[in-house]
Amino acid sequence: MKKKIVTLGEIMLRLSTPGNERFIKTQSYEVNYGGAEANVATSLAYWGCHAAHVTVFPDHEIGRAAVSTLNFAGVDTSYIQYQEGRMGVYFVENGAMQRASKIIYDRFDSAFANLNPDDFNWDKIFEGAEWFHWTGITPAISQAAADLCKAAVEAASRLGVKISADINYRRNLWQYGKGPLDIMPELIAPSHLIIAGLTDFENCMDIKESDYLQACAKAKEKCPSLKYISTTNRNSISASENGLSGILWNGKELLQSKSYDMTHIVDRIGGGDAYMAGLIYGLLHEEEHYALEFAVAASVLKHSIPGDANYVSVDEVHQLVEGKNVGKLLR
Amino acid sequence: MKKKIVTLGEIMLRLSTPGNERFIKTQSYEVNYGGAEANVATSLAYWGCHAAHVTVFPDHEIGRAAVSTLNFAGVDTSYIQYQEGRMGVYFVENGAMQRASKIIYDRFDSAFANLNPDDFNWDKIFEGAEWFHWTGITPAISQAAADLCKAAVEAASRLGVKISADINYRRNLWQYGKGPLDIMPELIAPSHLIIAGLTDFENCMDIKESDYLQACAKAKEKCPSLKYISTTNRNSISASENGLSGILWNGKELLQSKSYDMTHIVDRIGGGDAYMAGLIYGLLHEEEHYALEFAVAASVLKHSIPGDANYVSVDEVHQLVEGKNVGKLLR
Amino acid sequence: MKKKIVTLGEIMLRLSTPGNERFIKTQSYEVNYGGAEANVATSLAYWGCHAAHVTVFPDHEIGRAAVSTLNFAGVDTSYIQYQEGRMGVYFVENGAMQRASKIIYDRFDSAFANLNPDDFNWDKIFEGAEWFHWTGITPAISQAAADLCKAAVEAASRLGVKISADINYRRNLWQYGKGPLDIMPELIAPSHLIIAGLTDFENCMDIKESDYLQACAKAKEKCPSLKYISTTNRNSISASENGLSGILWNGKELLQSKSYDMTHIVDRIGGGDAYMAGLIYGLLHEEEHYALEFAVAASVLKHSIPGDANYVSVDEVHQLVEGKNVGKLLR
Amino acid sequence: MKKKIVTLGEIMLRLSTPGNERFIKTQSYEVNYGGAEANVATSLAYWGCHAAHVTVFPDHEIGRAAVSTLNFAGVDTSYIQYQEGRMGVYFVENGAMQRASKIIYDRFDSAFANLNPDDFNWDKIFEGAEWFHWTGITPAISQAAADLCKAAVEAASRLGVKISADINYRRNLWQYGKGPLDIMPELIAPSHLIIAGLTDFENCMDIKESDYLQACAKAKEKCPSLKYISTTNRNSISASENGLSGILWNGKELLQSKSYDMTHIVDRIGGGDAYMAGLIYGLLHEEEHYALEFAVAASVLKHSIPGDANYVSVDEVHQLVEGKNVGKLLR
Amino acid sequence: MKKKIVTLGEIMLRLSTPGNERFIKTQSYEVNYGGAEANVATSLAYWGCHAAHVTVFPDHEIGRAAVSTLNFAGVDTSYIQYQEGRMGVYFVENGAMQRASKIIYDRFDSAFANLNPDDFNWDKIFEGAEWFHWTGITPAISQAAADLCKAAVEAASRLGVKISADINYRRNLWQYGKGPLDIMPELIAPSHLIIAGLTDFENCMDIKESDYLQACAKAKEKCPSLKYISTTNRNSISASENGLSGILWNGKELLQSKSYDMTHIVDRIGGGDAYMAGLIYGLLHEEEHYALEFAVAASVLKHSIPGDANYVSVDEVHQLVEGKNVGKLLR
Amino acid sequence: MKKKIVTLGEIMLRLSTPGNERFIKTQSYEVNYGGAEANVATSLAYWGCHAAHVTVFPDHEIGRAAVSTLNFAGVDTSYIQYQEGRMGVYFVENGAMQRASKIIYDRFDSAFANLNPDDFNWDKIFEGAEWFHWTGITPAISQAAADLCKAAVEAASRLGVKISADINYRRNLWQYGKGPLDIMPELIAPSHLIIAGLTDFENCMDIKESDYLQACAKAKEKCPSLKYISTTNRNSISASENGLSGILWNGKELLQSKSYDMTHIVDRIGGGDAYMAGLIYGLLHEEEHYALEFAVAASVLKHSIPGDANYVSVDEVHQLVEGKNVGKLLR
Repeated sequence: MKKKIVTLGEIMLRLSTPGNERFIKTQSYEVNYGGAEANVATSLAYWGCHAAHVTVFPDHEIGRAAVSTLNFAGVDTSYIQYQEGRMGVYFVENGAMQRASKIIYDRFDSAFANLNPDDFNWDKIFEGAEWFHWTGITPAISQAAADLCKAAVEAASRLGVKISADINYRRNLWQYGKGPLDIMPELIAPSHLIIAGLTDFENCMDIKESDYLQACAKAKEKCPSLKYISTTNRNSISASENGLSGILWNGKELLQSKSYDMTHIVDRIGGGDAYMAGLIYGLLHEEEHYALEFAVAASVLKHSIPGDANYVSVDEVHQLVEGKNVGKLLR
Repeated sequence: MKKKIVTLGEIMLRLSTPGNERFIKTQSYEVNYGGAEANVATSLAYWGCHAAHVTVFPDHEIGRAAVSTLNFAGVDTSYIQYQEGRMGVYFVENGAMQRASKIIYDRFDSAFANLNPDDFNWDKIFEGAEWFHWTGITPAISQAAADLCKAAVEAASRLGVKISADINYRRNLWQYGKGPLDIMPELIAPSHLIIAGLTDFENCMDIKESDYLQACAKAKEKCPSLKYISTTNRNSISASENGLSGILWNGKELLQSKSYDMTHIVDRIGGGDAYMAGLIYGLLHEEEHYALEFAVAASVLKHSIPGDANYVSVDEVHQLVEGKNVGKLLR
Repeated sequence: MKKKIVTLGEIMLRLSTPGNERFIKTQSYEVNYGGAEANVATSLAYWGCHAAHVTVFPDHEIGRAAVSTLNFAGVDTSYIQYQEGRMGVYFVENGAMQRASKIIYDRFDSAFANLNPDDFNWDKIFEGAEWFHWTGITPAISQAAADLCKAAVEAASRLGVKISADINYRRNLWQYGKGPLDIMPELIAPSHLIIAGLTDFENCMDIKESDYLQACAKAKEKCPSLKYISTTNRNSISASENGLSGILWNGKELLQSKSYDMTHIVDRIGGGDAYMAGLIYGLLHEEEHYALEFAVAASVLKHSIPGDANYVSVDEVHQLVEGKNVGKLLR
Repeated sequence: MKKKIVTLGEIMLRLSTPGNERFIKTQSYEVNYGGAEANVATSLAYWGCHAAHVTVFPDHEIGRAAVSTLNFAGVDTSYIQYQEGRMGVYFVENGAMQRASKIIYDRFDSAFANLNPDDFNWDKIFEGAEWFHWTGITPAISQAAADLCKAAVEAASRLGVKISADINYRRNLWQYGKGPLDIMPELIAPSHLIIAGLTDFENCMDIKESDYLQACAKAKEKCPSLKYISTTNRNSISASENGLSGILWNGKELLQSKSYDMTHIVDRIGGGDAYMAGLIYGLLHEEEHYALEFAVAASVLKHSIPGDANYVSVDEVHQLVEGKNVGKLLR
Repeated sequence: MKKKIVTLGEIMLRLSTPGNERFIKTQSYEVNYGGAEANVATSLAYWGCHAAHVTVFPDHEIGRAAVSTLNFAGVDTSYIQYQEGRMGVYFVENGAMQRASKIIYDRFDSAFANLNPDDFNWDKIFEGAEWFHWTGITPAISQAAADLCKAAVEAASRLGVKISADINYRRNLWQYGKGPLDIMPELIAPSHLIIAGLTDFENCMDIKESDYLQACAKAKEKCPSLKYISTTNRNSISASENGLSGILWNGKELLQSKSYDMTHIVDRIGGGDAYMAGLIYGLLHEEEHYALEFAVAASVLKHSIPGDANYVSVDEVHQLVEGKNVGKLLR
Repeated sequence: MKKKIVTLGEIMLRLSTPGNERFIKTQSYEVNYGGAEANVATSLAYWGCHAAHVTVFPDHEIGRAAVSTLNFAGVDTSYIQYQEGRMGVYFVENGAMQRASKIIYDRFDSAFANLNPDDFNWDKIFEGAEWFHWTGITPAISQAAADLCKAAVEAASRLGVKISADINYRRNLWQYGKGPLDIMPELIAPSHLIIAGLTDFENCMDIKESDYLQACAKAKEKCPSLKYISTTNRNSISASENGLSGILWNGKELLQSKSYDMTHIVDRIGGGDAYMAGLIYGLLHEEEHYALEFAVAASVLKHSIPGDANYVSVDEVHQLVEGKNVGKLLR
């Protein structure tokens, strides 16, 4: 029986300059449709889970293209709603060597931001679900999105669906009159797993700590249901080369993953979402330390693939965890 | 001495699917930067005029790319203003055969729409100018844009700069609480030349006429300074094949151009702007009937070129008017 | 309630040279996944039906890519089986002007050809279904494929599911020791609708007639359940220009559609399947003459779209039937 | 036994803008290596003849690429010489509709122009040869090229090798101090077949005639060995559509070919060379009227293929002559 | 005088996803034609040898394209045979970083597998030849291929042509009822040079040794004519970075090459064939230790070039051996 | 007030093979327009200076395209002259790993080489200018170019405009009968800043020194106006990886910049020009050591950008100097 996981969040049209071209000179943009939460759903669906993504699209061909792309990955799109409005867009310029990568967002006032929370029947959406995943981006978009997120979290909590949250504080959102501390603590409270760095703890949970273990302990105090807290450590040597590892707090200790040197990064966007998906998949199917290793390995492989979606198989992730066939030519 | 022509209007990022690809399946978009008035400026600059375009861009790399593209064409960009905000975008899908071409607009709430009319010093902008061109799109965007257009028209009128207006009624704009009849008549009044079809006459000038000559006469009554009225006749056989001709009312009669069969259309967007540019150039350099033929020939050639901008030389237009080298291989 | 239609047939990897490039010089191939019956399912799914396609794929990444592509279109892929073996491939070279288009097939001994008919539970597949569609290609591939087709037709017949068959005689298949007259008559017998030209009648039903109406009458004698027979008339002026119309026999008379001149063909492969899908959709939702017009219009629009799949909306087909917006620029 | 045909002439690097892009905006050029005479050799080699091309290349990687490209087509490149110098280049912009195609030549002072006639041993080159083909371009390039051409013509004449010449007067060559009338008459004299239009007759043979039959008669007077004179009639409706037919004077009368309407031209460069190759092949293998039809059909098919080289098979040409499979989909 | 080398083996159509794209998402495949032995011939021809490749192709345009591609490289294709059947295909997905590269083979039942050994006249093929090269892939394909290989080896042996064999054991071939130990020992026996790793020794020569020098000694016992045994050591740090060196046993000792760090691999397929070609070229033109260095340097350069064929000049290989101009910008 | 800098030099059409393709196999070339001095102007214009480039172009579409490209970057093109002739071309093949990059020049006898020095009014060109930049390439091209360079240097000197010269000795130019020591010393004499390595000192200034500080002292003796001498140190590990640093002699000591490891070079052409531009910008706006760091950082960033032109902002250079945001993802 496939595990059902529900994800919630906006999907944007991602437009990337080809190769290493800069915005100023680009003659074309490559198309992807991505969002932090939908990227998680895509991984999980590709790995054989029943992943259902909840979102809102404008009712035109580009919205429809985004839905088709989710279908391509095997994501359940049956809970998606449509309404008038625009589609959020973000423009990406891939860095190289010392030159940084850049994103220009054009996402305000989207169909998603203007959603109607009453259009969603969470009891129906969560039928048979084991897990619900959301991120700190959604409540940062608009009051309506924050309300929807709250309704989802409450329903999941009520129905015994495990909740994960990628806190993911975004400074340039939160423009509708509320700040993260007005909204996030209540949303985070019933979580089973959160992804958070020290900045996220401070901005979204009012936990000012320089020691990660201490921060975890304080978070547990505020959210008694918390079983796991995790984050990745990224060492940015250049736009082309990063180190990556992950840590997982299990209520007692900080588990540490292997560290990977990613020397020829193809596309780092979605790397964090691949980690998130790996952690959910791992915790649902494996013991906790292996789950952490699975998450990091999934994230590493994502960096070798163009686009937001992490089209790597469960087997490929397992093999990287086990150090098999790394970089070989498989016939 | 180069003739100075000033144009005013928003420029958007145009994203077109390649070849005959549909929105649903496209993996990339081709980039152009275009706007009805800027397309006119581009033609005129490419033909050796001093064409200055007035607009507002967001202050980021994509706005800067649009300015660079105008520079590429030789347009004077020194009056352009920058401010916070987004860039209007429109998505284009090229039709073929019986299948129509489609545009999805995403242009609301742009930096241009939120412009500050006081940022523009029209006395300085019009220094040395002979002609000012605007279209009905600008006052349809926002109150601020309408105010800027009004300031420009008043200054041009006061300074003796000839004014042309492409009435160009756009049903899906005009969403800021005013209708075209609230705004347009006063703006059109001091024009020297207008482009208008019967629908435009009705919607923007309250002239309901089924006979074009009659409509022209009524327009002249309302706008005593009017010397010329013009429009094109497009016969859409298919997305790939159109007939095109133009007519020019000179206060006395309707001059009729040759009619062209465009059998293998490459890109029809900007065809009307090429006509407008041709008419301005023609009336500044040629007698009126030749000006009309020049305008239609310029527009025909535009249909053979990818993108909004009409990169054809004055010589190429003259040769088509004269029926020379049509479709030959020139060594 | 969505109408459920089941289709059965092999899907191949289609590799097309780009633009007008010839096989000899091509540096790349464009990828599509297509099959006559799956193309029908794709149209119907895109038009909002519940279209389920039954087939067999090799269990590797390219087989999986084909499934994902069906998912993209919204086709129900839950009945698809996997097994060892290769994927059929066909190479396409687009003609131009007087130069013909060419297909090189490489489809023998595929996973589909080696399918196991017992892997399919037709009672379950046809649950809730109103229509079953198959073509003469399937029984021509292998004995196993013919057996599967027979099992499907018998189940559909038994369960009261309407059956359509595109007879589609393919000379270079039928290499497993049986000829069409050994197999096809029994399969065709319980059909509600067939697509057949005079050659198909002769080769697959042993009806030698030069008059189409007579042929239809004879087919009805052999297959009393037949309600409709249809075919298209294609006038090949060149690879770039064809005329197209359709006829539909309704038991009494031959209905004749409008005739279309397709002057700038983009991709003609899948044109017949688009017609078939249009006819099924039309007969399920419209009266019979309109159904015929819908089928032809759908087929015409297909010729303007790259790839096998007919990504045009129901609205676009209706508009072409009604002569609206033909080849216009829709803003 | 394969027929051996020898061709002589410069090969240039052809750089074409992609699609319908103009020089001003192109971001890339597509690569071909072509020359009027080498294009003839390529056709003949592809049709199974032993075609040997004689030329000079600069001794660098781009010269070597041109040789490899001839090898690709099966042309015998064993007589090619190398020396210091540059490679001639020409830039091509494809027209569309009424817009003409354009060539910018950059061919002066090439390695070929500076060749040493003594490097070539014509007795060895013509071993086993039945036919020698040259064009009016070669003697127009430089004194050295004219000298080489003369040496070749004399040797062919002496050795009983049939000679064809495409007179092909090029106004913008002939810049080394000689005019065509200084050089061409002597070179043309021993020809078996020439391609010439009225302008060529006048400029290269001093025959001023408005009637083609009269011109042929006068040419025969000057060149008693002449058996055939031919030319094509091209009707340029637009850059996208041309009519094409050919005529062949056989010493008695003007044979007239069928006329073809080429409605969707892909690439017209090399069309004349394809005709020339067709005529040589035809006269070597068929009776004279069929040879003419073969030549025109070969030329028509060339217009459907990107690049200079006419990669169509003998069978495809025969089928077009016979009106079979025109524009069909061949499975 | 050019050295004549004969190679024998199947050539497949290689279809590679562009850039780092995965099979699941690729929209196109890049075309190469390659085979282990033909890749050797291509290198040798490009280096100025007379390299003749013996193989069988299907008699259609794609088979012809493969021949043209060999011609492009200057390979002698005059001994190639054609017959009915399909062309073997293999699909390649380039890895990156930790993600492995993948090949999906679709090569069974090809025209080559079904060849007729009697179609080849080895006495004629070996006229003037100094060297014959084959690999363990050929006898693994089918009985007919094994028979042809045997006929070739016997003829070479009889005619005093030196023989090299790349043992190259492929687990997923050998499906026609014979195992490598049934066939290979006899074929290997008369070799002058073999490429073999420890696994190849065990599977194809029944030599189970963990020490390479010991294995070489045992191979010499079984094959008294053996003068050289060689292999490469590849250190796969990732798909993007490998170390490479080679060793050569000369009957007395193991010569060791320099070791190279290949940090930005472009395409590793054909790397082993480039080594093989380098070794043959080196042993024919240089002393044995330099030959080994030449082979490794040729292989390293191959990794910097897209496609199977190693288009690097003899000079470039020499310079890398000598450490000159490594990675410079040569003007 | 923008600083005005004047640059002088030839611009060529740069044609680069895509990706890592070799000349032999390339099917297309990517287009750039570049020249050492124009690349400096492009950087300075992009950084907000008034940079005017002086050159000569052929009066055709490709010359015009080069001008438009300068306009794109914001370079002042009003002093450019046009005349008959060809455009210099250079072909670029990007290396990878141990394989070197290659340039094939085809630049002789260009319109620039044949310029008329009298067409340029240096008094007008230098109006308001603070700086003039030239390189050793210009006087190496032709006597006319050397004369123009001399006129420019004299005028700059007379008008108090600071002069910088990139000595840049090019062995394969200097073919018009003069050697560098005949011309360069006089031109270099009035410089404020020169870029020179030890080879340049020897070939162009007759200073034979193995110690850079000594060489600088001798240069100062010969050119009393010299304030700065600079050069870069490039450590070519491979075509894909270089180390880079710079040194600046300020009359007293050698300042040394940070050293950068460029591990994934995208395009190294223009790297030296970016350094030059950085040094000019730095010396005009910053203190001397920071100017040196600015120059090196600008050059490093150039290596991450395709094409000759260094489209990085002043802010991006400052951030690299300060070690901020190196290789990050900026949202």
